[in-house]
Amino acid sequence: MIQHHLRVPPGPVDLGEWATDATPGFDGDKEEGKAALEEVGQELSELQERLFAEGRVADDVEEREGRGVLLVLQGMDTSGKGGVVRHTVGLVDPQGVDITAFKKPTEEELGHHFLWRIRKALPGRGRIGVFDRSHYEDVLIARVRELAEPDVIEQRYDEINEFEAEVLGSGVRVLKVMLHVSPETQKERLLERLDRHDKHWKFNPGDIDERQRWGDYQRAYEVALERTNTEVAPWHVVPADRKWYRNLAVAMLLRQTLQTMAPTWPRVDLDVEEQRRRLEEEDPLS
Amino acid sequence: MIQHHLRVPPGPVDLGEWATDATPGFDGDKEEGKAALEEVGQELSELQERLFAEGRVADDVEEREGRGVLLVLQGMDTSGKGGVVRHTVGLVDPQGVDITAFKKPTEEELGHHFLWRIRKALPGRGRIGVFDRSHYEDVLIARVRELAEPDVIEQRYDEINEFEAEVLGSGVRVLKVMLHVSPETQKERLLERLDRHDKHWKFNPGDIDERQRWGDYQRAYEVALERTNTEVAPWHVVPADRKWYRNLAVAMLLRQTLQTMAPTWPRVDLDVEEQRRRLEEEDPLS
Repeated sequence: MIQHHLRVPPGPVDLGEWATDATPGFDGDKEEGKAALEEVGQELSELQERLFAEGRVADDVEEREGRGVLLVLQGMDTSGKGGVVRHTVGLVDPQGVDITAFKKPTEEELGHHFLWRIRKALPGRGRIGVFDRSHYEDVLIARVRELAEPDVIEQRYDEINEFEAEVLGSGVRVLKVMLHVSPETQKERLLERLDRHDKHWKFNPGDIDERQRWGDYQRAYEVALERTNTEVAPWHVVPADRKWYRNLAVAMLLRQTLQTMAPTWPRVDLDVEEQRRRLEEEDPLS
Repeated sequence: MIQHHLRVPPGPVDLGEWATDATPGFDGDKEEGKAALEEVGQELSELQERLFAEGRVADDVEEREGRGVLLVLQGMDTSGKGGVVRHTVGLVDPQGVDITAFKKPTEEELGHHFLWRIRKALPGRGRIGVFDRSHYEDVLIARVRELAEPDVIEQRYDEINEFEAEVLGSGVRVLKVMLHVSPETQKERLLERLDRHDKHWKFNPGDIDERQRWGDYQRAYEVALERTNTEVAPWHVVPADRKWYRNLAVAMLLRQTLQTMAPTWPRVDLDVEEQRRRLEEEDPLS
């Protein structure tokens, strides 16, 4: 089971001990990995449809809360958060997915508690929510760039844990994934963006400024992973130097999450024979 | 060019003259159609990424409006609106797509003008918006079920035309598609939902009530198509008895729309040499 390899054990975290170019839990090469992703995609797709179906039927009975999934993607620039959304999340029906890319907070967002914009983007019943960056930015860039007082940031770890427990309490599973790249891979990917005119739009000179603080960011990640690595919402570190493995690993984690929820085709209170009779006898053309 | 076959010519509309099981503009069979869809998907995917890139760069320069696409899907129950979202829209990066399924209006929505909820769902710069049902419900079910006074409905056709012209003025192309099924196909598909326990959740006894009014709905569609078939936002009728053709035809229409917009990789004001130097010389690891 891949999650045994990727789940962060409780206690202090040293990212230096986590490989960025390994393929833990998968024996094959790139071609085999891509084939495996297609297979996992089929299963994911069916599981997602069942979850969606559950949510739709629950709608009718006006239950207030219901089951959903929240995939939180974090990682340094170029670690492939967008790639995972495209290649892994893209495997399931887009009708059941809500993707939110959290950018630099707006003026309005800054006027609220840091979880305000996060709560607004939570997935509803039967849906898979995907956060490309998240509330963790408020203890990552906020810590490195000192965007808030130390005691405010200190408090945020606890607030995040309470928030995630509350999300779980409403029926939404939280799957937290850090995409872990090496600084060498980041450099290669930034250079590629400079080399290719069709990638220029992705290049932001500010990314190099952040890169200067690589060590500070790694440390901020270590603290965040340690402080918010709860039983109910544990962290996973996915080696992300190989794009194919990264996509496959997140797909497998998502599949595992959905399998644990075991969504089933909802039982509908339906008199099948009566409905069939109506269809046969009340034909608008006859 | 497939749109020449599918675009509704100006003037009165008689849906009886439009085949539901034909494959206009495509010579192949089902297998060839599926292969063609994959090819079109590759092109769609690249066009969508360019559009998205344009939108992202425009973000930075704080342009207020920008280019986007709005795909409006209408059709009777079981005509395959959801299938098109899954199989055609699902071919492009889900990060660039905003899908809205318009259900029966809520109390809050009913307290507003019928276009209120529609405006809120319009796609932003660089994005493809998809409406699974739309403002057209307000002249379709509203007309058949007399949910508004006749003069109110009468006025809505003009309001829709003004609204769509306004949307186009803001840079968003409007692609309107009616998925056209026969009542026999609908019956088959409803029976299939009854036969399969994994489809029961999709079955709504109310669909049979609406089916009784097949003729009224066809007439309401004919009026809507005629009255809102403007030069800037024309209607297309896609034969939808064959799912593979339906998916392919909408993909081809969407590709054509994007090709006409001709999105290009944005020119970014970037000193490539300077950025490369910074990356080489300011390595956080050296």
